[in-house]
Amino acid sequence: MHFLIEMDKLKSIERRTKLIHGSRLENDAEHSWHLAMMAIILQEHSNQKVDLFKVIKMLLIHDIVEIDAGDTFAYDTVGHHDKFDREQRAATRIFGLLPEEQGKELMDLWLEYERKETNEAKFAASLDSLQPLIHNYLNHGETWKKYGITSDKVLDRNRKMAKGSERLWEYAQEMIEKSVVQGYLSK
Amino acid sequence: MHFLIEMDKLKSIERRTKLIHGSRLENDAEHSWHLAMMAIILQEHSNQKVDLFKVIKMLLIHDIVEIDAGDTFAYDTVGHHDKFDREQRAATRIFGLLPEEQGKELMDLWLEYERKETNEAKFAASLDSLQPLIHNYLNHGETWKKYGITSDKVLDRNRKMAKGSERLWEYAQEMIEKSVVQGYLSK
Repeated sequence: MHFLIEMDKLKSIERRTKLIHGSRLENDAEHSWHLAMMAIILQEHSNQKVDLFKVIKMLLIHDIVEIDAGDTFAYDTVGHHDKFDREQRAATRIFGLLPEEQGKELMDLWLEYERKETNEAKFAASLDSLQPLIHNYLNHGETWKKYGITSDKVLDRNRKMAKGSERLWEYAQEMIEKSVVQGYLSK
Repeated sequence: MHFLIEMDKLKSIERRTKLIHGSRLENDAEHSWHLAMMAIILQEHSNQKVDLFKVIKMLLIHDIVEIDAGDTFAYDTVGHHDKFDREQRAATRIFGLLPEEQGKELMDLWLEYERKETNEAKFAASLDSLQPLIHNYLNHGETWKKYGITSDKVLDRNRKMAKGSERLWEYAQEMIEKSVVQGYLSK
């Protein structure tokens, strides 16, 4: 129960992305829920057949470490240097609140997600890349403009989406092109 | 994709319950995520063996209808008169945004949850009752006090938790008793 009470804190960890319908920043808990819904609806677009249950569990827990480590912005190159160390310390503390077997199961699942080697981890990561692109496109590039992100950076950062889903990466590229044409994203 | 963009609206549907760690009201998207986490951790306390994947999908979608129908407060007896009608209209519109087969699958899952007849629906509903009790207890009964809710009402409203989990209902009753002793909830 201590772990589940701790989980409440994820609702206050803000991301850099704004809601589509609303003016505030999205938090990690609702982001995780949204990704799980995307997995249910978009599963057919995974390159490889995946165990959907595993993908969903992975997405539900993938950001829990940010309770301690905070959200590291996708385009923050400095923050990414020690991201894994910070997040691993967080995982040890937070999953350590659970009975040993459950804690190990979630830790293993989180490590599998981080390593991006299995089909499930690759597809889950594709959705995690796609979702903020959709938000940014529909918000007319608000976050991109605020942080001076260019289309090259967005393409570079998100190219790995193709490892989980070629189809979603095509869709994302079309969205990035349209964002440039419409002035939401600079070249 | 239209459906998945519509899903963003659930992040702005407020419940009557406050966060545990924070001063704002909880929204339906983060609430749904929290319940899915509870299902993963508390599954052993279900009265009957359940298909956990189904329980989780049910919890992820159980409040989607509130995008149109709004949150009906657990202790709002008037609002409950037409709750199912309002929510069924919402389900028809929202799940209707999906390709037919997917829409039907989620509609069936939502109806199964609403009917509370299967083991999965009963256990999912137990978690949906338990979570706000934990929030209210840890928030020193803020919502109970605000709406003048008594312990009899809380016991009556949540007794059905036992259908999904006798163990969690025992736990909840202890929490309700402690809430009365500590003055968070009036007799």
